[in-house]
Amino acid sequence: MHILLSNDDGYLAEGLVALAGALRPYADISVVAPDRNRSAASNSLTLEMPLRAHVADNGFIKVDGTPTDCVHLAITGLLEPEPDMVFAGINHGANLGDDVLYSGTVAAATEGRFLGLPAVAISLACNEEPQHFETAAEVAVVLLKRLVDRPLPRDTLLNVNVPDVAPEDIQGYRATRLGQRHKSEPVIKQRDPRGRSIYWIGPPGAEQDAGPGTDFHAVSMGFVSITPLQLDLTWYDRINMVRNWLSGEVCA
Amino acid sequence: MHILLSNDDGYLAEGLVALAGALRPYADISVVAPDRNRSAASNSLTLEMPLRAHVADNGFIKVDGTPTDCVHLAITGLLEPEPDMVFAGINHGANLGDDVLYSGTVAAATEGRFLGLPAVAISLACNEEPQHFETAAEVAVVLLKRLVDRPLPRDTLLNVNVPDVAPEDIQGYRATRLGQRHKSEPVIKQRDPRGRSIYWIGPPGAEQDAGPGTDFHAVSMGFVSITPLQLDLTWYDRINMVRNWLSGEVCA
Amino acid sequence: MHILLSNDDGYLAEGLVALAGALRPYADISVVAPDRNRSAASNSLTLEMPLRAHVADNGFIKVDGTPTDCVHLAITGLLEPEPDMVFAGINHGANLGDDVLYSGTVAAATEGRFLGLPAVAISLACNEEPQHFETAAEVAVVLLKRLVDRPLPRDTLLNVNVPDVAPEDIQGYRATRLGQRHKSEPVIKQRDPRGRSIYWIGPPGAEQDAGPGTDFHAVSMGFVSITPLQLDLTWYDRINMVRNWLSGEVCA
Amino acid sequence: MHILLSNDDGYLAEGLVALAGALRPYADISVVAPDRNRSAASNSLTLEMPLRAHVADNGFIKVDGTPTDCVHLAITGLLEPEPDMVFAGINHGANLGDDVLYSGTVAAATEGRFLGLPAVAISLACNEEPQHFETAAEVAVVLLKRLVDRPLPRDTLLNVNVPDVAPEDIQGYRATRLGQRHKSEPVIKQRDPRGRSIYWIGPPGAEQDAGPGTDFHAVSMGFVSITPLQLDLTWYDRINMVRNWLSGEVCA
Repeated sequence: MHILLSNDDGYLAEGLVALAGALRPYADISVVAPDRNRSAASNSLTLEMPLRAHVADNGFIKVDGTPTDCVHLAITGLLEPEPDMVFAGINHGANLGDDVLYSGTVAAATEGRFLGLPAVAISLACNEEPQHFETAAEVAVVLLKRLVDRPLPRDTLLNVNVPDVAPEDIQGYRATRLGQRHKSEPVIKQRDPRGRSIYWIGPPGAEQDAGPGTDFHAVSMGFVSITPLQLDLTWYDRINMVRNWLSGEVCA
Repeated sequence: MHILLSNDDGYLAEGLVALAGALRPYADISVVAPDRNRSAASNSLTLEMPLRAHVADNGFIKVDGTPTDCVHLAITGLLEPEPDMVFAGINHGANLGDDVLYSGTVAAATEGRFLGLPAVAISLACNEEPQHFETAAEVAVVLLKRLVDRPLPRDTLLNVNVPDVAPEDIQGYRATRLGQRHKSEPVIKQRDPRGRSIYWIGPPGAEQDAGPGTDFHAVSMGFVSITPLQLDLTWYDRINMVRNWLSGEVCA
Repeated sequence: MHILLSNDDGYLAEGLVALAGALRPYADISVVAPDRNRSAASNSLTLEMPLRAHVADNGFIKVDGTPTDCVHLAITGLLEPEPDMVFAGINHGANLGDDVLYSGTVAAATEGRFLGLPAVAISLACNEEPQHFETAAEVAVVLLKRLVDRPLPRDTLLNVNVPDVAPEDIQGYRATRLGQRHKSEPVIKQRDPRGRSIYWIGPPGAEQDAGPGTDFHAVSMGFVSITPLQLDLTWYDRINMVRNWLSGEVCA
Repeated sequence: MHILLSNDDGYLAEGLVALAGALRPYADISVVAPDRNRSAASNSLTLEMPLRAHVADNGFIKVDGTPTDCVHLAITGLLEPEPDMVFAGINHGANLGDDVLYSGTVAAATEGRFLGLPAVAISLACNEEPQHFETAAEVAVVLLKRLVDRPLPRDTLLNVNVPDVAPEDIQGYRATRLGQRHKSEPVIKQRDPRGRSIYWIGPPGAEQDAGPGTDFHAVSMGFVSITPLQLDLTWYDRINMVRNWLSGEVCA
């Protein structure tokens, strides 16, 4: 099996190195990752400029693009043979609830949706500096073995968040839904040293929907949270509502 | 009513100007848009650097960030009073099927999900150079009036694609689901003038799932396609599958 | 005569528009300028990525590169016929003393050194918001006429600074040498809203050598300062010193 | 003695590592260098955005800015105590003749002009892939020792180019002047895969003035070329010419 690894914290990130070390005994590993921190890059793709890919000192391939660029390149011609699946992470920080919309780690996994096996995004849900990458690395191994033994449909995307505790303190695994955050905190307005206005994006909103069943809740209770994500954003339950709403003079 | 407009083609784009002109008679309009082309930026957010916002000659506010940055700033403190809804577009080019994952226009609308009224992303589905922005502008007006007369739930996000034909050639409106593309074409490998390898992201894949009911099909038949999108990416139908898959020794 | 205009404040800058308006009656004008503010870009060249050039709404050609890129492109194939000379500016702010090392405006003029006529960098020496672009524009016309009537050697680069006063308050013209600043003020250390260290380049140092004969002095007295710059950075007076220093065992 | 090292090829570049290794036995070494390749950055300074500085795995401080930013930060507050001198390089490629206008390596040295000892920019004049960094490293040691034994004026900036040959094949040292190149080769116009025009900066011009006494000549004959550079760009010999040119009605 050939597994492609990527992330959004950059090819030198401790979480990526830990993931590569953990999975290497079980598969052929190729790493294609951004040449620097690209957190919150979401699914952004570089269409206007060419990309460059170089083998770095640690054997990883670094690309001057986004996480999506990295995986896109890797599976459309850069790597031979094509990988069978993508693992993205281990992200330095949680990707819970609305975070997944912005996450470069989840985006990297998304880009692996055309491959033969499910894609996995794995994040260490730390509050401050991440400490227990070894816990998330062990979880990655457990999930890889399980995916081999008991395959899931290939269009599955698993968003995994691991509490930042020692492996023996993990309470178990939970299949979850995404919770939700409140709207972000207000923009932070400052003046630069030359007296001009600058704005910083404010911190994410507090948890709004974080009750039992959500990823927020699972992680807060010490469980590994696993949320299946869909890549078809159609809100099927609302197609009829829109159809009715459109009926009448508009479509006459 | 106070409507926030944004886009991903930049504050000078013809589609944005057309949209502002069309909606201005019906509402207070504020435009906050990127200072340059940011197509395919998806939901990327600028967290590491501050942003700058300036009123441009045309009265629009330009920001040196992504579409998501623009809307985020606008609704978390830059604009007073806060807007009631977001219209993003008119995008120069279609946002059909998988395109929505990468689209900066759809992302701008997404960022308006916390506002009091639905968000609308509107794109002109042209093959080459866009020609009939006036058609998409008329569609925007129709939808705005309809949203006022017959409100939809506030967490609704409408992805609208308009055929690039004269207004009188529009066949009507269709509520659709997203179609799907094949995997992208292979990466394009070249050498730069200094002899070094560069890679360009290949063109989007051909349509794979473009039958009746899809957005691809509606547009190709001359209809305005309207797809309700969901922002909760949880794949609810698969939570149980994942739960069963996890059961056994893993969660023991 | 065909004059190429560029700047570092971007193709929409008021100073550039004023310069183009002033010179247009006297020559064919082509403007090739950065698509956004590129102050302090110095002579940086974009070698790793391709550039894009588009005709903007105001008829200027905008390039997604540095001032040096703009002039380089313009004189190596983008413009037909090739321009005869370069005017860069009107810069929003002075370029006095050590400023010329960093200035994108001076760099744009530098890049015109291979053309048939002298290159001119012109800056408005304002303290706060620039006010009297018309004064600098008149100066540009005076210099252009004079260059036509009484040519200077083609490898001449004139660095012009104009006091930000009404035209009638200009005291005259002075041929000057560059003054010198003290070392810059200390770096400004802050924390970003996420608690991480960031650094801002401090303000330029105060004037150290600003006595009679310098550009600083001329401008402060209300004169237009004109400093001839050389592009051969060799310090000829020191070649012998280095030769002697090297003699002995090193070169044995 | 405390020596600051920087470069423009990035903190991981082989030439920088070789330089640090060579000088470490003779002084306290601090390295502050760009986090990625910033060749041809010239003296560009980052004024609009803050910078971030991190200690990398190899102990060097990496900054998300230009070479000039790196040295500027280092000597205006980042490093305690302040360094005594700057060595920039070993650049991957020559910096001969007009190259010095664009070079980030020379710019890094320039920024050290306020320190107590001369600044040195050192480049390996290779044609293709650099091979003999050890030769340039030895040259750096020779020059450092010489600067300590027989000090040069503190405002001296030495631009050093070392032939890419084995140390025993170096023919000696030469004090040189800068040669000159012809105008650059024409811009290279291409179409990107989406059919849009792109432009690449063409290669540097051929040597125009490369006879005896120039840096080009010294290197081509197997000598280490050392050119003293001046940072005062005033063309003193032309001030009178400009004064006369201005006299008459202009200054009336």
